[in-house]
Amino acid sequence: MRIGLDAMGGDRGTAEVVAGALAVTEKLNGDDTVVLVGDREQIEAALGEANGRQDRIEVADASEAIPMGAAPVETLRAMPDSSIAVMAKLQKQGELDAGISAGNTGACVAAAQMHLRRLHGVHRPGIAVLCPTFAGPVMICDVGANVQCRPQHLHQYGVMSSLYLETLYDVDKPRVGLLSIGEEESKGNELTKQAGQLMRADTYLNFIGNVESRDFLKGGMDVMVCDGFVGNVVLKLVEGVSEALLPGVLKMVAKAMPDRAADVMQVASDIKTKFDYNSYGGTPLLGVAGIWIICHGVTGSRGFMNAVLGAKGFRAHAVNQRIVEHLGSS
Amino acid sequence: MRIGLDAMGGDRGTAEVVAGALAVTEKLNGDDTVVLVGDREQIEAALGEANGRQDRIEVADASEAIPMGAAPVETLRAMPDSSIAVMAKLQKQGELDAGISAGNTGACVAAAQMHLRRLHGVHRPGIAVLCPTFAGPVMICDVGANVQCRPQHLHQYGVMSSLYLETLYDVDKPRVGLLSIGEEESKGNELTKQAGQLMRADTYLNFIGNVESRDFLKGGMDVMVCDGFVGNVVLKLVEGVSEALLPGVLKMVAKAMPDRAADVMQVASDIKTKFDYNSYGGTPLLGVAGIWIICHGVTGSRGFMNAVLGAKGFRAHAVNQRIVEHLGSS
Repeated sequence: MRIGLDAMGGDRGTAEVVAGALAVTEKLNGDDTVVLVGDREQIEAALGEANGRQDRIEVADASEAIPMGAAPVETLRAMPDSSIAVMAKLQKQGELDAGISAGNTGACVAAAQMHLRRLHGVHRPGIAVLCPTFAGPVMICDVGANVQCRPQHLHQYGVMSSLYLETLYDVDKPRVGLLSIGEEESKGNELTKQAGQLMRADTYLNFIGNVESRDFLKGGMDVMVCDGFVGNVVLKLVEGVSEALLPGVLKMVAKAMPDRAADVMQVASDIKTKFDYNSYGGTPLLGVAGIWIICHGVTGSRGFMNAVLGAKGFRAHAVNQRIVEHLGSS
Repeated sequence: MRIGLDAMGGDRGTAEVVAGALAVTEKLNGDDTVVLVGDREQIEAALGEANGRQDRIEVADASEAIPMGAAPVETLRAMPDSSIAVMAKLQKQGELDAGISAGNTGACVAAAQMHLRRLHGVHRPGIAVLCPTFAGPVMICDVGANVQCRPQHLHQYGVMSSLYLETLYDVDKPRVGLLSIGEEESKGNELTKQAGQLMRADTYLNFIGNVESRDFLKGGMDVMVCDGFVGNVVLKLVEGVSEALLPGVLKMVAKAMPDRAADVMQVASDIKTKFDYNSYGGTPLLGVAGIWIICHGVTGSRGFMNAVLGAKGFRAHAVNQRIVEHLGSS
């Protein structure tokens, strides 16, 4: 399998991506190759400074990086030689089997939609992120690929996320909730009410009905389906909590027992580890005819390593084939 | 001023509402009266058991309470003698100047819309809640009155919330953010993009542009405007954090230093106090031709007391008159 890795994406620069590629080579097998996509000079410099087997690593040229805040579609068109555009085109041409990027998420979605097709039967791709909580991870889909959802999109997000968790994470009959503003069927907006009807009618889905945003932190569900605008708001709010609220709480704890500052620091560090994005294999863009894994901007080498393994698992378990089996006739 | 208080609303029962009414009478003046709306027998029993001046308290009869989960509009029509319906009708007839309820929020919104008119120029009323954060309170509007928003609704929520904070909380030029999924103008869905244009064009508003959900926990804004579905999701997620995440963190702290369990408990209690809903004067339904304050279901006597004072402030500062001055010509 040939796995593309965007060497120009992410906040930590090329060396971090390269370190991830080197870390994962020991875990690859057969004809697996990691293809670093980006500025050859920078990549080779980073490879030269690093230790580790490099026989499973190749480089593909791309001249520029799409800036993190840039408008996806327009920028992608204006920068056809950007690492994200090149990686998508290489996958389209069959030169790559998967693409992984910690760059501009919108550009990743646009590139995948522009160059890879959608899977047969899928209306809109969705980003499915595994969100860590104290009660275990919950997959939220969509978190930003599609901000103008229709009911059938939400229904399909439930199906695709279920198939993904079943195959890659061995979750038996994943419990799927529909994010709304009340548990009763009558609660919600037009979008969620109609999506709920579709999901209730689907005999494959283990649909548990409407859920509220507070519920997913408590366990009891494996998937939470929502429109991409709302999912993005939820995801960033959970992030915001770890950035703003946890330090606030720990500061109060430290103030209450100034003699134990070191212990409080340790707890802060434990929490950071517990909720570390790098433990997960990146975030799949479900529904495209290919494999595209989106990583958080702050992803470190361990995160890139796990994303490569995630891409391997995605292919080995034939997730896309299973999606087409379920949705191909819709 | 005659202030109605729904004695049948809220999770804690009539006695808690009555205790709030008794607590606030010392702070009333002139011709202020609190009118408890509900089952006269129950109210009088609770008054009989309590201490405190009762000369500023009256009772208005209502025979039943709208259940918390019930579908608002249908239930309201089916229960014309419910405390919420009666309170709205009394305000319409001029028998009350304000209504306060910790009951079914949807029913409150429906009753206010059905019996009180909208203020001249206002398209849709919005619920504006003051959400406590470590960086100070932020007013979020709407949090559930209107789940199918149009751009002009969001614009008006920004204006009404600003006027409210200016007049009641002395916030100078409240900073208004529009909740979206990226700070750039180009980010968001059709609703937020069009709302952003309207808000940028309004010279009264101190509009700071798009904000992300994580931002409002960090300070830097006084108002966050969003559609009622999204706002409800945000509000409940923040609640969910205090319910699920904070105990999780404190458990880790307690585990790291088992000898200091009492201190950790104290911190938990301090946090609870810091984020106590009861410190605020309830949540106004902005945009109705009258005064309607919605309280959280778990509101205690102190919360009802502050809601009565909030209703007095709302009238004394002529919030509605200022809203009409700003929006009456739109």
